[in-house]
Amino acid sequence: METNFRASFEEERKKVEVWFTLLRDKICEELEELERLCLISPEISPQRFQRKEWKRDGGGGGIISLMKKGRVFEKAGVNISTVYGEFSEAFRKEIPGADKDPKFWASGISLVIHPRNPHVPIVHMNTRMIITTQLWFGGGVDLTPVFPSQKDTVDFHRVLQETCDHYDLESYLKFKKWCDDYFFITHRNEPRGVGGIFYDYINSGNFEKDFEFTKNVGEAFLKIYPQIVKRYFNTPWSEEDVQHQLKKRGRYVEFNLVYDRGTKFGLQTGGNIDAILMSLPPMASWEIEA
Amino acid sequence: METNFRASFEEERKKVEVWFTLLRDKICEELEELERLCLISPEISPQRFQRKEWKRDGGGGGIISLMKKGRVFEKAGVNISTVYGEFSEAFRKEIPGADKDPKFWASGISLVIHPRNPHVPIVHMNTRMIITTQLWFGGGVDLTPVFPSQKDTVDFHRVLQETCDHYDLESYLKFKKWCDDYFFITHRNEPRGVGGIFYDYINSGNFEKDFEFTKNVGEAFLKIYPQIVKRYFNTPWSEEDVQHQLKKRGRYVEFNLVYDRGTKFGLQTGGNIDAILMSLPPMASWEIEA
Repeated sequence: METNFRASFEEERKKVEVWFTLLRDKICEELEELERLCLISPEISPQRFQRKEWKRDGGGGGIISLMKKGRVFEKAGVNISTVYGEFSEAFRKEIPGADKDPKFWASGISLVIHPRNPHVPIVHMNTRMIITTQLWFGGGVDLTPVFPSQKDTVDFHRVLQETCDHYDLESYLKFKKWCDDYFFITHRNEPRGVGGIFYDYINSGNFEKDFEFTKNVGEAFLKIYPQIVKRYFNTPWSEEDVQHQLKKRGRYVEFNLVYDRGTKFGLQTGGNIDAILMSLPPMASWEIEA
Repeated sequence: METNFRASFEEERKKVEVWFTLLRDKICEELEELERLCLISPEISPQRFQRKEWKRDGGGGGIISLMKKGRVFEKAGVNISTVYGEFSEAFRKEIPGADKDPKFWASGISLVIHPRNPHVPIVHMNTRMIITTQLWFGGGVDLTPVFPSQKDTVDFHRVLQETCDHYDLESYLKFKKWCDDYFFITHRNEPRGVGGIFYDYINSGNFEKDFEFTKNVGEAFLKIYPQIVKRYFNTPWSEEDVQHQLKKRGRYVEFNLVYDRGTKFGLQTGGNIDAILMSLPPMASWEIEA
């Protein structure tokens, strides 16, 4: 790849940006539809996403779409961003291709959904394309139920497996393991949730194939998550269920602030705080047994 | 100092351990007294501390004293611990004197108090003695009000200044600045609270003098914090005040999980999770403006 990377891959960059915007729109519509379909909590009106643009010092920016205090979604954030500039000295060694030239370009979509109903799982999805002197795709989708159900876990993984198999028959097990290893709360010796897929540094040499995989990961999320939401969104819950949910959300905060690479990366590179910490739950608790 | 450090400083080690235990008892009594003195929230019975011992793999352990769901203190944790063993390879370079010999001994008291009433400030206090091939004291006290009051801040700092001045006329400004620098949430460009003191690697060559300072820091906490609690513990609060409190507690979580050295140290060295994360609030929120 040429050093003059900003001028190169112009068509590819345009394509992925357009896709992330389109996916964002589809996801927001789908989640708003779920708000309208939910029959319980009639005292809470179905909510819609509110958008807020942010600019990044050094180049680029993004748009946060946030739904707050919805009937189904207590907090749902979908962020799309395209940022570019130069990596700081400290990061150059950590990022493939950045040691030769610190310039980078990155575009992606990232979402975290914290449902109100403790029976509806928390979910995270992120896909991105990054260009340094190299170009690659990364991403992941993972589910964090408060009360895990084998059926949900199996169905969630099946859709992801189909998506990976369509790309390449070796990827699913690799990306599933990567997810299990990555979303692990070491200090508690427990996984964040029931897994999913996680991948990075994807470049098969065939841009169209890799980009199609990226699109399919987004479509897989759209196929399975609303299904799982619908299984539980009309299920009543108890105060005790809420206590379990708040505790699970506390674990989510611990993972994201102590281990998550994206969060650390964002905080250290002066990213937009609201976008980086969009993943944190509206409310969480830490009650210890002593 | 001799390499055979476990046999050395026996008298000093005994003295500091006894002090931390005594201070713990005094603090718990004082906080329980405040529970009984508070006149509002009559539906909540005054609570007492519950103790739980923990053992550390590799040597030593501690006792957590925890008060939960009190009338004044929604969560108050006081931990004393004495731990010893060998630092892992990774830590040897970071800890004074540990590069020559990885053996260490450390004893300390640590407390974090999350009051129920948003008008009563959160507080943290910690003092400790550490022995490697060197011996030193460290510690700190800092106040985190949801609604800062100049009078509280001035009074809190005055007591700490008197304590430091009694030790040495140069220390207060140094320890105050250290606190301001340390308890700073870089990614939000905001301090955690209104400061206090923070110090480490204290060894004047006079053990008795340094130990007296450590004791005086504990006494300073006992002198000023209950006073500040009494100023507000009968002040009614609104739901909006609670929202501000939950947001401030969210910031507290961010600081402790992203930056706090003690927390990182504990999580990385397989410390007791309940003791390390005792600092986290019973409930916190993240609501973003978008």
